[in-house]
Amino acid sequence: MGIPSEMQALTLASYGPPPFPLTVASRPVPTLGEGEVLVRIAASPVNPSDLAFLEGEYAFRKPLPAVPGLEGCGRVVDIGRGLLARRLAGKRVACSPAAHSDGTWAQFAVAPATQCFLLPDHVSDELGAMALVNPLAAIGLIERVHELRTRAFVNTAAASALGQMLLRLGQRRGLEVINVVRRQEQVEQLRGQGAAHVLSSADADFQKRMEELCRQLNARAALDAIGGEMTARLLAALPAGGRVIVYGGLGRDVTTTVSLPDIVFGDKSVEGFYVPTWLASKSLPQLVLLERRVPRLLGRELATAVRARVSLEEAPRAIQDYRRAMTGGKVLITPNET
Amino acid sequence: MGIPSEMQALTLASYGPPPFPLTVASRPVPTLGEGEVLVRIAASPVNPSDLAFLEGEYAFRKPLPAVPGLEGCGRVVDIGRGLLARRLAGKRVACSPAAHSDGTWAQFAVAPATQCFLLPDHVSDELGAMALVNPLAAIGLIERVHELRTRAFVNTAAASALGQMLLRLGQRRGLEVINVVRRQEQVEQLRGQGAAHVLSSADADFQKRMEELCRQLNARAALDAIGGEMTARLLAALPAGGRVIVYGGLGRDVTTTVSLPDIVFGDKSVEGFYVPTWLASKSLPQLVLLERRVPRLLGRELATAVRARVSLEEAPRAIQDYRRAMTGGKVLITPNET
Repeated sequence: MGIPSEMQALTLASYGPPPFPLTVASRPVPTLGEGEVLVRIAASPVNPSDLAFLEGEYAFRKPLPAVPGLEGCGRVVDIGRGLLARRLAGKRVACSPAAHSDGTWAQFAVAPATQCFLLPDHVSDELGAMALVNPLAAIGLIERVHELRTRAFVNTAAASALGQMLLRLGQRRGLEVINVVRRQEQVEQLRGQGAAHVLSSADADFQKRMEELCRQLNARAALDAIGGEMTARLLAALPAGGRVIVYGGLGRDVTTTVSLPDIVFGDKSVEGFYVPTWLASKSLPQLVLLERRVPRLLGRELATAVRARVSLEEAPRAIQDYRRAMTGGKVLITPNET
Repeated sequence: MGIPSEMQALTLASYGPPPFPLTVASRPVPTLGEGEVLVRIAASPVNPSDLAFLEGEYAFRKPLPAVPGLEGCGRVVDIGRGLLARRLAGKRVACSPAAHSDGTWAQFAVAPATQCFLLPDHVSDELGAMALVNPLAAIGLIERVHELRTRAFVNTAAASALGQMLLRLGQRRGLEVINVVRRQEQVEQLRGQGAAHVLSSADADFQKRMEELCRQLNARAALDAIGGEMTARLLAALPAGGRVIVYGGLGRDVTTTVSLPDIVFGDKSVEGFYVPTWLASKSLPQLVLLERRVPRLLGRELATAVRARVSLEEAPRAIQDYRRAMTGGKVLITPNET
């Protein structure tokens, strides 16, 4: 199969709150640079970080009209110069395009070879499409918890895809996980999955119970997907020496207010986690180990539920639905199916 | 000289904003526990942390009426049981009482032997009285900057006693110091002391200039004595990976609002520094090294200007004066002089 010069892609007309101005448009198939590969996209998910991108609140913006999509999977159909790219020729990969390139909500996408993982045959397109953003965040965050030598941690947005990965990876490591969700039905859902500690932030005594649990279990880390007031509540709940690690802003607040006495006298701190920063701290051998480890975990601790597979044409509507209820499974865009 | 059963002390009737309800009163000379020593106080300073204590905003409160005073120096006139206390018998020491004990604004004070440093003869009472709170903070903070492997740092409240220590220790280590002060005359004062980079936060282009300097010098740490809005401004000014280390709340704001994108995508963080926490991380040999190092630095990098020596009776008035203009040198209370 030859590579066409034009492709279909979802394009965003402007950044801002929903409804997002997304339409299907013809775009030139992106051209390859050194060390890059061209991937024919089989599937690409809609993650919370994609919604942040659409709103203009992500780490970067692309020139408009922009092709969104932070990860996907497919077969490498062309390669640029360089050893790392050559290794991937003709292979199935999970990929994440560079910040300055078009994204994966398109029939083709270009990605640096260093941001591609080889996918073994037994990994489906569904799992492979979601192999990078959430799984790497989960592994990196649990690594951070481990470095902090705490046997327990708080897990916010615990019913989300990433929240559930953190719960399962934490359990597998023998860590106590204090799960925080927003609704009573999520409490029951996680209890049904064997979670020992689940709190709903909607309960009147939430703060008190979280503080008690943190003290009992000596939880010195909190993984925060919410931001805003939640960050402050977590910082207050942790015992002395506690650390809040913020990795998302689901709460839509772009600031958080922290207590100075907690920071100074309580030896507490607030730091961030962002997959690209974490990956940049890794050596090539460490990245190869990760590439082998992720597929093994994808069907197990790092599994993700899918609610719908949609074509490019169906995607704008499905993205709005996803935004309204983000814990009901992922939306998967399949740009080469109609 | 025998030890009396009663002594004169400054006592605080209630915590809160100034004017502080301080009066001279008779108190029983405190009794010794195991591992403690009784010090006849020669001099004790008024530090910003004492003002925070008077306002009830410090790490701890003592039962009222309370004797304030977080450090002082004098001769050990009685000892409790234990080897560490016996080592100090009859010696001149700098001391810091335990959180539950009466403070140093009194004729006598009890301190744990582990919170006393021996003072060589060449160290005056003036310097010895201020050997712990600020010098240890300065050494600990510069150690932290060193651990972060940055060649430059931002130094807020740079005209304060501790700010000047940080400047001199930083210069001695060959670090670039970006000094932040509040008034133009302090800019000139620090330039006169050889500071290469001094910014006034009162200037309209302060934020822009701080950001430029941080980028130019790749300053990845800011030592923050102010808190509140300053913490947020520092976090914004630092390049990616930057860390704000808060060690005081001179700005009187007990909270600070920080930007989530800076934390997550910018890999920036906010942490605290508090001398007792730092000391608790040290081994006994490390503490002995510190005990030898501090006196050598006291007359040099760790020197502090003194504006007034006052008796207990004169102290309440002098403390109010100090609070109004804190950078004009320290007030030293000499409880055994009249």
